Amino acid sequence: MRLCLFDDDRLGLVRRDPVAGDLVHDASAALEALPARRYPFPRHDLLVAALPALRAPILAAADAQPGRPLASVRLRPPVANPGKIVAAPVNYRKHLEEAEADPATFHAAHVRKIEETGLFLKATSSLAGASDTLRVNQPDRRTDHEVELAAIIGTPCKDATRENALGHVAAYAIGLDITIRGPEERSLRKSPDTYTVLGPWMVTADEIGDPAALDLLLEVNGEVRQRANTRDLLLDIPALIVFASRFYTLEPGDILLTGTPEGVGPIRPGDTMHAAIEGIGAMTLRVA
Amino acid sequence: MRLCLFDDDRLGLVRRDPVAGDLVHDASAALEALPARRYPFPRHDLLVAALPALRAPILAAADAQPGRPLASVRLRPPVANPGKIVAAPVNYRKHLEEAEADPATFHAAHVRKIEETGLFLKATSSLAGASDTLRVNQPDRRTDHEVELAAIIGTPCKDATRENALGHVAAYAIGLDITIRGPEERSLRKSPDTYTVLGPWMVTADEIGDPAALDLLLEVNGEVRQRANTRDLLLDIPALIVFASRFYTLEPGDILLTGTPEGVGPIRPGDTMHAAIEGIGAMTLRVA
Repeated sequence: MRLCLFDDDRLGLVRRDPVAGDLVHDASAALEALPARRYPFPRHDLLVAALPALRAPILAAADAQPGRPLASVRLRPPVANPGKIVAAPVNYRKHLEEAEADPATFHAAHVRKIEETGLFLKATSSLAGASDTLRVNQPDRRTDHEVELAAIIGTPCKDATRENALGHVAAYAIGLDITIRGPEERSLRKSPDTYTVLGPWMVTADEIGDPAALDLLLEVNGEVRQRANTRDLLLDIPALIVFASRFYTLEPGDILLTGTPEGVGPIRPGDTMHAAIEGIGAMTLRVA
Repeated sequence: MRLCLFDDDRLGLVRRDPVAGDLVHDASAALEALPARRYPFPRHDLLVAALPALRAPILAAADAQPGRPLASVRLRPPVANPGKIVAAPVNYRKHLEEAEADPATFHAAHVRKIEETGLFLKATSSLAGASDTLRVNQPDRRTDHEVELAAIIGTPCKDATRENALGHVAAYAIGLDITIRGPEERSLRKSPDTYTVLGPWMVTADEIGDPAALDLLLEVNGEVRQRANTRDLLLDIPALIVFASRFYTLEPGDILLTGTPEGVGPIRPGDTMHAAIEGIGAMTLRVA
């Protein structure tokens, strides 16, 4: 299933029509299975946690609704309540090499092997969807695009093994890990509002063949900046889940950004970013 | 008001009885003013956001309930739904000096001035309350205690000024920023489950005189390890809020850990930590 949240947090099932292209079928009726809650609310995403049980109700709800053209809806982040956003630094060899080669841009404290640097967190308040506009936070500093495969955790997971790790992934999406360059810790420089774009929807894991063989692409103003394949990840998705879950419990809806390949570069107000990942889709964002 | 969450996420007002000491009055009836919500849930804390409006209902609800001895309740983190936990590294000069003097323990990449290092994030899944047990995550590595004054944001805040910053603080609490030493980014090493202790309750800002003149204390097994005063913060609370809100929007319920003074040291399973901050209270935690 390709699932989106759109407009006023409605749930959509995206289906491809051979003539009209991608259409969004409103499946919000399936959300009625999620009970109303009072304060305090869960700290994980209830929809992602319930996805296996909601599969049939979502399909039935979508069947009952006409498809709307994709361009007519406002795409929100497909995960509404992530407890945390975990991200991998320098996880492609060629990106490590380009960072090592340019110490003026990439602060030496941050150019180390991923096994030493570990993973970092991004603020959930930085989340944006495919229809949002990226708002440059500090125009006087260099801000870079980074396209990444995002894995969305489906079941609670502590001390995962390499064998069971992928079983904890509910879905995949395109992630943009927008970054201010400089000396501060990543969890600050990468967390301004709108600096984590997730979209255009999430694709359930059953529809992604091998997540370790997906082409990624990012263009700025029509020019290809990043082109890679997830087979070149230094730590692949099972290894990242094993690594992360040694430190903390991964919860349903947690977003794992797997790291960006080489080709990162600056974006400026007025630019247009186009990102695509094989098997997921594409999205185009404006920079303001 | 001293407000706690206890047992099954009940709201408590803590009052001091001249004979019986601190008593917890169940004020959960006041939570009925917070409406039930359906998925997706807010990404900020509804109780903290509503505190000004709930003050009278909380006092009324507590008046109607007998006080229970503090020892008879299980104290939970007083903020149930923080969107993010923001923390300040090396924000006391003497802690910077002790870190610089011991490069074997404090990795050189992490011993820099706070203006350069910036702030970091801790996972909200790391939250624990005063009645919880701290569970050491990786017993083969050094794990340290760090006691800090925690400020709890009450109103949305972007690009705060030094003049209005403190007006965004709803309450204060004791924070323990438990830390694995090593080379990884702080947002990983400080985020294992139970590694952010917040408690024993939150004290609304109106009851804290000057947050820049509070004594802090941390003892391990009865031995004083950290003793300082918030007047020695390098970046004080208004400066931290100005700094953080240049990067991202602070939301109601966001927790700001202001940094730890000198005296950090290891804790081991079996230890007992006792933390106290003037004007807030004290809490004692077991390490397992």
